[in-house]
Amino acid sequence: MNTVSEPAAAGAPEHTDLVITRLLKAPRAKLWGAWTDPKMLKEWWCPKPWTTEVRAFELRPGGHFHTVMRGPDGGTSDNPGSFLEVLPQQRLVFTSMLVGGWRPNTPWMPFTAIVTMADEAGGTRYVATVMHPDQATRDKHDAMGFHEGWGICIEQLDACAAAL
Amino acid sequence: MNTVSEPAAAGAPEHTDLVITRLLKAPRAKLWGAWTDPKMLKEWWCPKPWTTEVRAFELRPGGHFHTVMRGPDGGTSDNPGSFLEVLPQQRLVFTSMLVGGWRPNTPWMPFTAIVTMADEAGGTRYVATVMHPDQATRDKHDAMGFHEGWGICIEQLDACAAAL
Repeated sequence: MNTVSEPAAAGAPEHTDLVITRLLKAPRAKLWGAWTDPKMLKEWWCPKPWTTEVRAFELRPGGHFHTVMRGPDGGTSDNPGSFLEVLPQQRLVFTSMLVGGWRPNTPWMPFTAIVTMADEAGGTRYVATVMHPDQATRDKHDAMGFHEGWGICIEQLDACAAAL
Repeated sequence: MNTVSEPAAAGAPEHTDLVITRLLKAPRAKLWGAWTDPKMLKEWWCPKPWTTEVRAFELRPGGHFHTVMRGPDGGTSDNPGSFLEVLPQQRLVFTSMLVGGWRPNTPWMPFTAIVTMADEAGGTRYVATVMHPDQATRDKHDAMGFHEGWGICIEQLDACAAAL
């Protein structure tokens, strides 16, 4: 099969990951709809009262994905990136390491996120696995309030999806 | 179509790219064969008398792609990365920004390469477009002898493919 795999690649360095999971009420089809429509995404992508501007949303591998968030105190967070894998209603992979056309980026927060959705009794199991290049970056992301911030957004996503 | 594109993404910063092209004698099928068989790849991947060890070669989007090169003077170059797009006999995209499973990397040389092969009178048009995160990185890659090094390898690839 022309495939060579080294042992190191199989043993993923999970100590550089942050993982958050929720059992959501909305079915996968609606969660996927709220995730992949930029008009919906801007409603849940960052914790309110921060707002999101969706500058690019090209939902395909190598497609540009660029959001800018703004806070009530004038703070901003500029987040260019790209989609890497799009499996409807199942899995979405995106990264800050690359932008549109897989062009290299110099991100303020280097990560790749794998979002999965799966049926489970009572709703949909939603898991976001956020991988970093090293433990220091993972720890910085954790200390910035990763779990609280992403948790709020996932609950906002569930509410948006329920309203579809 | 749920797609938003910002003007900036369309106007690619080509001043951060290095591009090399050759008209090769071998047909696309043989070039693709010599590229995608790790036993062949190791024969042409770096300028001889340097040698290549292929530690991982998972030919699929997100697959790990890891080579280590060794020089006659004991020098080594360790290059983990990943494939991003695999279009047989047409296009291959790989990057040093991510490793297997799209996990972020901290590369010594940040780049994404797009290799294309197309039929042309007399053989195959082979183009490698190497994108960097900024002009300083592009200029460093250029000053390291990008055009000479990649040029030698592409000619080694043509010779390997011809022997298939």
